[in-house]
Formats: sequence, structure tokens, C-alpha cells
Amino acid sequence: MREKPIGIFDSGIGGLTVVKEILKVLPNESLIYLGDTARVPYGPRGKEVITKFALELTRFLLAKDIKFLVVACNTISAICLEEVKEVSPVPVLGVIDGAVKKAVSESRSKRIGVIGTRATVNSRVYEKAIKELGPAAEVFSKACPLFVPLAEEGLISHEATRIIAKEYLSEIIENGVDTLILGCTHYPILKEIIKETVGKGVSIVDSASPTSEELKRMLKDRDLLNTKGQSSYQFFVTDAPDRVQEVATEFLGSDLPGELIKITL
Amino acid sequence: MREKPIGIFDSGIGGLTVVKEILKVLPNESLIYLGDTARVPYGPRGKEVITKFALELTRFLLAKDIKFLVVACNTISAICLEEVKEVSPVPVLGVIDGAVKKAVSESRSKRIGVIGTRATVNSRVYEKAIKELGPAAEVFSKACPLFVPLAEEGLISHEATRIIAKEYLSEIIENGVDTLILGCTHYPILKEIIKETVGKGVSIVDSASPTSEELKRMLKDRDLLNTKGQSSYQFFVTDAPDRVQEVATEFLGSDLPGELIKITL
Repeated sequence: MREKPIGIFDSGIGGLTVVKEILKVLPNESLIYLGDTARVPYGPRGKEVITKFALELTRFLLAKDIKFLVVACNTISAICLEEVKEVSPVPVLGVIDGAVKKAVSESRSKRIGVIGTRATVNSRVYEKAIKELGPAAEVFSKACPLFVPLAEEGLISHEATRIIAKEYLSEIIENGVDTLILGCTHYPILKEIIKETVGKGVSIVDSASPTSEELKRMLKDRDLLNTKGQSSYQFFVTDAPDRVQEVATEFLGSDLPGELIKITL
Repeated sequence: MREKPIGIFDSGIGGLTVVKEILKVLPNESLIYLGDTARVPYGPRGKEVITKFALELTRFLLAKDIKFLVVACNTISAICLEEVKEVSPVPVLGVIDGAVKKAVSESRSKRIGVIGTRATVNSRVYEKAIKELGPAAEVFSKACPLFVPLAEEGLISHEATRIIAKEYLSEIIENGVDTLILGCTHYPILKEIIKETVGKGVSIVDSASPTSEELKRMLKDRDLLNTKGQSSYQFFVTDAPDRVQEVATEFLGSDLPGELIKITL
């Protein structure tokens, strides 16, 4: 059981920013990643469509005999984590709770900003999760729909991205938050520009690191840690033009440690 | 037969810029539109995936007993128009030939620029079509992947769009074209900024108007024009969050003249 792989999925390849942290924290674990590159992005879509797509991804990974499932996509975690849990016989971890815990424990002013896709922000899932942990907290959210295409196109330190970031983040800055949650797995790619825009006084929390720590804790609690250490990696995508390989490397911060395999769902 | 509707499809709602012109030129025709808003955009995807999706859209419209099929998407027209024609018992018209004819006949220098999605530009379909009509023509192409999200987000006269347009179009401008084809049904939305960027000396050709004229000619040639004039309109989409209705209106330049109906393919 312990040697079984962990399944990780995302609407595309943004989830690789989470994989990057898992590789650091859990080098002994085998991973099977699935990115729905044929239908990315999910952020602008409705609940019904997002849920349908997410359950298709879930079923693909469950058929791979995984021991644990990580939903490495904030939109899916926000919209239909319960639906994924319902069909999964193995434990499921989303990317929202880890970042929320970290933000609430680190924020001193309890004024917390959240940015994400339109679907994530409209769901108000972050607000609910933050207020559960810190009822006195004030949450200021903003959808930043252009951040995903800007990140995917590599406009990481581009003047256009700076202008758009300034516009998206102005209200959050005016509200005097001391902590900003990056509620989308694409956003760590734009961390420098976001940091620069909100200023030094605001600490940035992304999902990748807290999620990998939470995953480690959950595996340990369930006695599911792989102690053998013969890890293997597979990366499945639903579409694989040359560009996916290129961008994937950028998101992971290194070459993919396994093959990129195209499948049809 | 003549009273049957015309089927029109696009990867999303960009094709409504073509519908807008068809409504002007052929007010007597009934139209059934299908936009794959659950899987838009197609531009960054590979040939296999684009073809699979396009054939699903084709089959849906063919089942509606249409008399004619318009592929109101440059990416699909560039990647798999032949495959669509193969499965269609009714005549099929793409959005490439009309714009190419107009550009070649109007260009005096025969130096023609083409902008489109990554899939469209990589296909080199415009280059081939232009050189067939004007073998001496020189073609300068550039993929402008951020124009679609910028148009959909309504950044129509925004500084960030201006900066990105300048960057995308600089090479085409340096090459001294006198005509620029907007090879994507989203781009007419950004026409003003594109015009401003390339300067007055360059005439802009989009697909919408030449395609509607070509459609009228083809219907007439085949004795398929609806002379009764009791037109009706239906707009099917595969996902319909509130935002689709909003953006649709913007692309059409007026309220939708028919209901927006959500379907699952």
C-alpha cells in the first residue's frame, strides 16, 4: 500500500507548482500527475462543467491504483472538492485549507487578501474557510482572470503584466491587508511582480508549500509514507502540443522527472 | 429546403462577430449557432484535439437539419476544414478564403500581414491560400495568443493591450505590409487598438464581412436563399455562466436575437 503512487491533478499544468514542492518534501513518493491541457482553463467555466471535468480526471487517476489524491487546482478545490471526495475511496486533499491555515496563523492584522480565478473568487470558499479559523478576520478577494494566460505566455516580468497587476490589486492594497493568498496554482509564476505590486509589508502565501506539508502530515498520520524510496513519476496530459512540454518545465522549475504521456479522456 | 437554418459554429463566442455580419447581409436566414464555451479556447491546442472537438460540434449542428454549415472559427478553419467537409452532407464555408481573397485583391504592395492564434499561424494555411491567389505576395505572420483573453476580458482600449499589441505587431510593421488580416474571430473587438498600432497606411481585413458576402453568394449559386423571410435564431453553448451572456452581447454588438441554450456534448 505504502509504495502505491499519489495521484495529483489539475485543469492544466499549473499544478506542477505543487508537484515541485511535493518533490522536495516527499522525495520517496511515486507520483502520477494528470493535467487536462485539452480543456484548460477551468477558471472561467460554470460549476456544472467544472464538476463534470473534475470527476473525469478523478476517475482516471483512481483507476491507476493510487493511495492518495491531491487536487492541485484551486478552481476545482473551490467548486467541487466534496464531489471528488464522494467518489474517491482514497483520501483527498485540496489546495485551499493549507494556504488558509498558514495565512490565518501568520497574519497579524487579520486583514487577508485572496486572488484567484473568477470561479474560485465567486465561490467565496476562501472567505468561509478563513472565517472558520479566524472569525474576526476580514477577507478581501479579487478575481484576476488574465494572470493565467499572462503566466502561460511567460510575461513574467513584463510591463503589461505590471499594469494589469496594479489594477487587479489596487483595491486589496487600499484595504491594507498584511497577507495575500495566491489562490491559483499559476500565480506563483508571477510572484515577483505581485510582491513588487503589493509592497514589502504584505506577505505572500501560495498553496504549493503548505499543501505539500499537509500532504506529508496526512500520509504520516495514516501510515502511508513510502519508506522504500524507489519513486517513479508519470505525467499524463489530455493534449500535448510542443508548447506544453516547454511551459511544464517552467512551472516545475526543472525538467520533468518523467515522461509526458498524451491520453484521451 | 430554402427555409432550413444555416448552422454556424465556433470554439466559443468569437464567431458572433461573423453572425453580426450575416444578420446584416442575410436578414431572411434562420441561424443556429453553437459555441463550445466549455472548452474554449482552441487556439493553443494540438491538431488532434481541435479536430475531435470540431467534429463533435459539426455532428450536433448536422443533426439540426441545416442547409449550410459555416465554420466561424479561424483555428478550426485552419486546422481541420477538410475533416469537417468530409463528414458534412451540406456545403461548408470556413472563414479563411473570404478574407484572403479580399486582402489579395486590395493589397497593392502584395506585402500582407496575418495575425491569429498559435494553431492558426503554425498551420501556415493563410500563407498557402494567399500564395495560391497571388504567387508574388509576401506574407508575414504572427501568433497573438493574448489577444483572445484580452478581448474576452474587455481590455479593448487598455494600456496593457496597447503594449502587447505593439510588441506582437512590431515585426509585421517593420516588414512594411499594406494589408493586415485579422485571422481570428475575436480580433475585430480589438480593431481600434490594432489600427492605431499599425498606422493609417495599413488596411485591416477581418473575416466577418467577406465570409458573410461569400455565404450569400454560395447560397444564391445553390438556389438556397430563403425568400420567405421568417427567420429564427437559436444560440447553443456548452457552458453558460452569466459572463457568457455578457460577453456574447459585446461580440454581437447588440442583444442576442434568440435564446442562449446550454447543452452538453
